[in-house]
Amino acid sequence: MRANVMLTGDRPTGKLHLGHYVGSIANRVRLQHAYNSFFIIADLHMLTTKNSRADIERSAGNARDMVLDMLAAGIEPESATFYLQSAIPEVGDLNTLFQNLVTVPRLERVPSLKDMARDSGKDEMPYGLLGYPVLQAADILCVKATAVPVGKDNAAHVEVTREIARRFNHLYGDTFPVPELIHADVPTLVGTDGQAKMSKSIGNTILLSDDAAAVRRRVMGMYTDPDRVRADVPGKVEGNPVFIYHDAFNDDKAQVEELKERYRTGRVGDVEVKEKLAAALNRFLDPMRERRAKYAAEPGLVDQLIVEGTERTREVVRQTVFDARKAMGLTSTFQAIRRKAQATTKSR
Amino acid sequence: MRANVMLTGDRPTGKLHLGHYVGSIANRVRLQHAYNSFFIIADLHMLTTKNSRADIERSAGNARDMVLDMLAAGIEPESATFYLQSAIPEVGDLNTLFQNLVTVPRLERVPSLKDMARDSGKDEMPYGLLGYPVLQAADILCVKATAVPVGKDNAAHVEVTREIARRFNHLYGDTFPVPELIHADVPTLVGTDGQAKMSKSIGNTILLSDDAAAVRRRVMGMYTDPDRVRADVPGKVEGNPVFIYHDAFNDDKAQVEELKERYRTGRVGDVEVKEKLAAALNRFLDPMRERRAKYAAEPGLVDQLIVEGTERTREVVRQTVFDARKAMGLTSTFQAIRRKAQATTKSR
Repeated sequence: MRANVMLTGDRPTGKLHLGHYVGSIANRVRLQHAYNSFFIIADLHMLTTKNSRADIERSAGNARDMVLDMLAAGIEPESATFYLQSAIPEVGDLNTLFQNLVTVPRLERVPSLKDMARDSGKDEMPYGLLGYPVLQAADILCVKATAVPVGKDNAAHVEVTREIARRFNHLYGDTFPVPELIHADVPTLVGTDGQAKMSKSIGNTILLSDDAAAVRRRVMGMYTDPDRVRADVPGKVEGNPVFIYHDAFNDDKAQVEELKERYRTGRVGDVEVKEKLAAALNRFLDPMRERRAKYAAEPGLVDQLIVEGTERTREVVRQTVFDARKAMGLTSTFQAIRRKAQATTKSR
Repeated sequence: MRANVMLTGDRPTGKLHLGHYVGSIANRVRLQHAYNSFFIIADLHMLTTKNSRADIERSAGNARDMVLDMLAAGIEPESATFYLQSAIPEVGDLNTLFQNLVTVPRLERVPSLKDMARDSGKDEMPYGLLGYPVLQAADILCVKATAVPVGKDNAAHVEVTREIARRFNHLYGDTFPVPELIHADVPTLVGTDGQAKMSKSIGNTILLSDDAAAVRRRVMGMYTDPDRVRADVPGKVEGNPVFIYHDAFNDDKAQVEELKERYRTGRVGDVEVKEKLAAALNRFLDPMRERRAKYAAEPGLVDQLIVEGTERTREVVRQTVFDARKAMGLTSTFQAIRRKAQATTKSR
């Protein structure tokens, strides 16, 4: 029986925020010990939409921030394997081999890719962006992952991985597991502006690394019920970002219910609701801050985790690529030629 | 100044024929000493349309046949570098890095790809087939080729290589030459059936490795002027495959003119025209047969050429990929992390 292996991760585009936590990090923390867990820092995927030299130069710093954010959130360094995608060039080999196992129309049916192209300001879809799910299949299958936690956006990507794994196994014999999708059971977190999902590019985030004062400042600036002009006007709780956050992060459920009741009946001001949310969020983030302080006090820890994780992963990937090439018959092509060349050299 | 480097080659799908000779091999023979010449056996490209285990298993034998055909045609083993594409996995890395430098609509405008998809019996375009010109760019640029001989079909592919080289240099600094296209000055050779270009899949070929009897047999079965029912009926020379071959391969130009004159005026039978063509083709192929016999008598020579060429090429490619990753800033991402990790390990 195969060991259970999980692969998940992010592009190194910046610090992680509460939206990331709700959408994926919480799941990673929960699942980390049930699997041999790989966390990819997907800098080659970043190149599909951001590929300037300046973008690439920010990767190292962003990678460090991301790993420290994950440690702070509760991923344990002893059991996790963090790795930098671009430092494992064998992934590009696997990506190239997988490209013939999926069709253009199939990839064009993946809903999120057009949005990604538009959001990145591209007029035309880069070829590599259309192939985002193929490179993702190479990531997932290069460590023979059996499970992939997915949010709403990338479930369709991982379906492509499953198809590629099946197609490969059908053509060349059983080589890859067909990984299971682990669905996050929470909806996308709305931003502090209440307008869209929390996203760095919109600037409506609360970062996992924000200090208590920054959290309070961001909460006090949040959108609430736009029709409620005074504290004694009854307000709407449903769809109100302040209450969405209360529901998601306030551990004092009685307090939340009481605030909702008073809000609906015009007996509480926005300021009090927000002050209590800021306090709740800071209670929620305090254990992360403690862990962050502890890990940050070990100089070079994050860098060492990335280097060791990358080296460990590269060994796994080399074996996988060897297995894949062997199954395809590519290894034996060159071996056959080499054997004959050697045999005749000896006999001369 | 850069050394002049030429890259050209074929997919290992079978033995070479007169159509290959006219379209590309003659050019290769003529140019081989003007450049540092690389001849790719493009088995990864074969996977875009033929990717069964059985197809791949035929590659080693086909690769040997192709190389022996080229040697027989006059490529000199001392100066040429033959290599097997799939034995250089770094090409897949470069392919992956190049994928973001070209768009899907740009690739969809390459005319030959849809034909290739249709010819291979695919209902839907494989993603890797749409990216055929990207992988080709990786092949051409991985040896920093400055020149690529092209036929009508693949000139559009190599234009994509030029665009990728320019785009890379623009984004990351001057790294790749923008290779020149060397156009073959001859039209596509018609098949022995006169219906289409010479092609193995149609079965209308004369192979470079056919013996004299086989050549004669194939010539005697050729199509001529369909309206000419008897030898004393005036016939058409233009577009008549037998005379196209006389023009292309018969070194006795006076004989060709005399045959044409008699054909036009109904004073020669098809059999005589064909007998003289068979003789001319065999005169043309005789020096190739001599060279083939000489090289085939050295056991393992072809295999050794492929192995040594592949090893030599792999060194060049490794340096190129290093240069490309360095220019992009990918090398320094991991180096920065590693340096910090090492510095803190030491200081403990």
